[in-house]
Amino acid sequence: MSPSGVRRQWEVVPSDIAQKTHNPLRNVVENLRLEPNPEKSMIALSIGDPTVFGNLKPPVEVIEAMQESLLSIRYNGYAPSTGHQEAREAVARYSSSAAVTVHSQDVVLCSGCSCALDLAITVLANPGQNILVPRPGFPLYRTLAESLGIHVKSYNLRPERGWEVDTMHLEQQIDASTAALVVSNPSNPCGSVYSRQHLRDILQVARAKFVPVIADEIYEHMVFPGQTFHPLASVSDDVPILACSGITKRFLVPGWRMGWITIHDRHGIFETAGVRAGLQRLSQRILGSNTLVQGALASIFTRTPEKFFQDTIMTLQCHANIAYDMLKGAKGLTPLMPKGAMYMMVGINMAEFPDFASELNFVEQMVTEESVFCLPSKCFDYTNYMRLVLTVPEEQLREACHRITAFCKRYHRPEDADSHKGNTDVVETCTSNCSAALRESRDLIVPKDASISP
Amino acid sequence: MSPSGVRRQWEVVPSDIAQKTHNPLRNVVENLRLEPNPEKSMIALSIGDPTVFGNLKPPVEVIEAMQESLLSIRYNGYAPSTGHQEAREAVARYSSSAAVTVHSQDVVLCSGCSCALDLAITVLANPGQNILVPRPGFPLYRTLAESLGIHVKSYNLRPERGWEVDTMHLEQQIDASTAALVVSNPSNPCGSVYSRQHLRDILQVARAKFVPVIADEIYEHMVFPGQTFHPLASVSDDVPILACSGITKRFLVPGWRMGWITIHDRHGIFETAGVRAGLQRLSQRILGSNTLVQGALASIFTRTPEKFFQDTIMTLQCHANIAYDMLKGAKGLTPLMPKGAMYMMVGINMAEFPDFASELNFVEQMVTEESVFCLPSKCFDYTNYMRLVLTVPEEQLREACHRITAFCKRYHRPEDADSHKGNTDVVETCTSNCSAALRESRDLIVPKDASISP
Repeated sequence: MSPSGVRRQWEVVPSDIAQKTHNPLRNVVENLRLEPNPEKSMIALSIGDPTVFGNLKPPVEVIEAMQESLLSIRYNGYAPSTGHQEAREAVARYSSSAAVTVHSQDVVLCSGCSCALDLAITVLANPGQNILVPRPGFPLYRTLAESLGIHVKSYNLRPERGWEVDTMHLEQQIDASTAALVVSNPSNPCGSVYSRQHLRDILQVARAKFVPVIADEIYEHMVFPGQTFHPLASVSDDVPILACSGITKRFLVPGWRMGWITIHDRHGIFETAGVRAGLQRLSQRILGSNTLVQGALASIFTRTPEKFFQDTIMTLQCHANIAYDMLKGAKGLTPLMPKGAMYMMVGINMAEFPDFASELNFVEQMVTEESVFCLPSKCFDYTNYMRLVLTVPEEQLREACHRITAFCKRYHRPEDADSHKGNTDVVETCTSNCSAALRESRDLIVPKDASISP
Repeated sequence: MSPSGVRRQWEVVPSDIAQKTHNPLRNVVENLRLEPNPEKSMIALSIGDPTVFGNLKPPVEVIEAMQESLLSIRYNGYAPSTGHQEAREAVARYSSSAAVTVHSQDVVLCSGCSCALDLAITVLANPGQNILVPRPGFPLYRTLAESLGIHVKSYNLRPERGWEVDTMHLEQQIDASTAALVVSNPSNPCGSVYSRQHLRDILQVARAKFVPVIADEIYEHMVFPGQTFHPLASVSDDVPILACSGITKRFLVPGWRMGWITIHDRHGIFETAGVRAGLQRLSQRILGSNTLVQGALASIFTRTPEKFFQDTIMTLQCHANIAYDMLKGAKGLTPLMPKGAMYMMVGINMAEFPDFASELNFVEQMVTEESVFCLPSKCFDYTNYMRLVLTVPEEQLREACHRITAFCKRYHRPEDADSHKGNTDVVETCTSNCSAALRESRDLIVPKDASISP
């Protein structure tokens, strides 16, 4: 710019927001040297998209519901920015239980759960304030917050206690500028599922410090048999909570971009502050989610048979058991058995792998030699672990675990006789092809009369 | 907050962004007293959703394309944040012409054109900078910018010259903090369509002042016979342009939320500055648009018959002619004949309506007595006009124009013999039921074999 304030040339600069938007996961992965062994087929245990391998498909009822919505010619126009009333009512019913009642006016539909998290963080925090996120945790929280100039502080999870929150550390992290606490349950990347008592302990900290909570519950209900998912809002009636979820994971349609916020505010703290109005305002920047999916939502919820969910869970648990059983025998690794979601964290005892400076080099070299890629825990702001997705077909998962085991055997240098394996979880053993029957029953059958004219 | 920095009570406050997000249109409408005459059916000439009246439907080919995408079970997973490659290629082909070539890497898919405008404004402007928008103009530009602390300055359009830009005023408005110029063509609310020469004149200002341009072209190709739509990017090869569009209006599916940015940057000004990288980063906050629509996009573009577009245009032009013919006879009104899009601006000579303090009172009273609602031009940061949508069914439009004419007759107090009617546009006369035949040919026929099993 010249002194007169007149430009003499192009001076285009991308905005601060654009420059501050970083995807930590992508940044880590892009800096890895990933050159698979050409003699071995690539197995990506890194991809968090459950549909990508073709073995997990949405239920036929969901496809039918969308087809009806499409052919009704009723859902092509604009919806209100927070969503069609009937769709919000459907989410309210779906999210209500004996312990928690959600009304349609408490629902804000969003373009995927990512967008719900964006709105929740954006409405509660100003630039210069901070939000608290779990470590290890899903990197999008950081992407969304930091791009707006909101700081991110991490609280520790405790792998030895099923990735429970270190509530003392959490409490220490809260300061006068803490605008919100993000709680992820069930968790990506940990696969943890918290007990009612533990959720109570977390909320006790939020209550004592007067910090509102953002509950990332996109994996709600995706818990293994014997576990129970407790919505955070069902545990407390006083801490104000914005719960974020969607149909992405449970109904296996992440690309459809249908998520939502449910507002839990029984003491009217959000209401008095104007947070509900703020969310409504922010939704006008986005103008809602795809209306065809909105039109299908009520049917998606009511028609999807319980068996579909059970089958998905059984597949995930079966895969978790396979991976756990196989990798607990791998030298220098400590798999941690998940209780839900779609992931397993595997500890790497780096002291026993002196050839590698960090888990980054470990996963790199495993790609080079074995064509198996797991996300290094640095993607989740953590060290010495790798995350496996459990949605890959069983055969690939077994092959991957074999290769991982062989890789560890080649590079393992025992520190001493004690092999550091301390995990004492009881694991249900899984028959070798437990998912074959499942797979058969799961294949999506397109309705016979739904073919398209040429 | 207590002096020790420890909260003693809940102090939740919605963020600045949430508080600064305002929809000027909604603010204006919510402050109107709208109580229709219970003895007359309500006719809303205010709603910018072309699908809401049921007379304008998407082409059967578009529904079929979506159905194929859905039943293929190929588009349920996550897409890259800027969109599936094949969908970006489809938009690139659709947006290319003899005069302008778009490559797939120049395309960023977004959740509707609103989201495209959001990304375009967000990537170019910082808080404290300003963007220039047309007056009268679409209020979303202001909503998006001001919520981020970006100032909005308006440049005048000239109703007497078909709403062309007052380029001298535009030039005067540009200052050292101007980050982008928004050009809307064809225009909502004006229905204007700019000549190649006029677009050149606008770009000359941008070039001379080194201001990048955001072209809002969501109504591209929706121009009446005899008019030509020139993409702004086809007129210049040096001014960097982010063009925003989508399938919303032309294909009559606004709720599907499929829009895009095309980057036009032949001299590499955006590239050098990192604007393309910035857009890619920002797209990671959004995580793309509905993948089913992405999967259908190529077919939507190639299969929709030209006749569908012609029919829509004929309907809109026919309605424009009807409204123009009827309202030019209304006392104190000056309808301005649009050249495209879906709207008509009608001037209200307020001096001849001494009962009303402004066009706000005028439209309020028209609802009270005639149950006809047109948006007052204050919604578009302008005075003494009202905007009619041309997408209502012909019968309702005629009835509305009758009522408007009767209303004007009741309240009109001539200032003098000269009635201020200066509009000399030549209008093609329209037979009284010119759209009946059209309507018949347009009814969407659902493919016979596409019914749903119960």
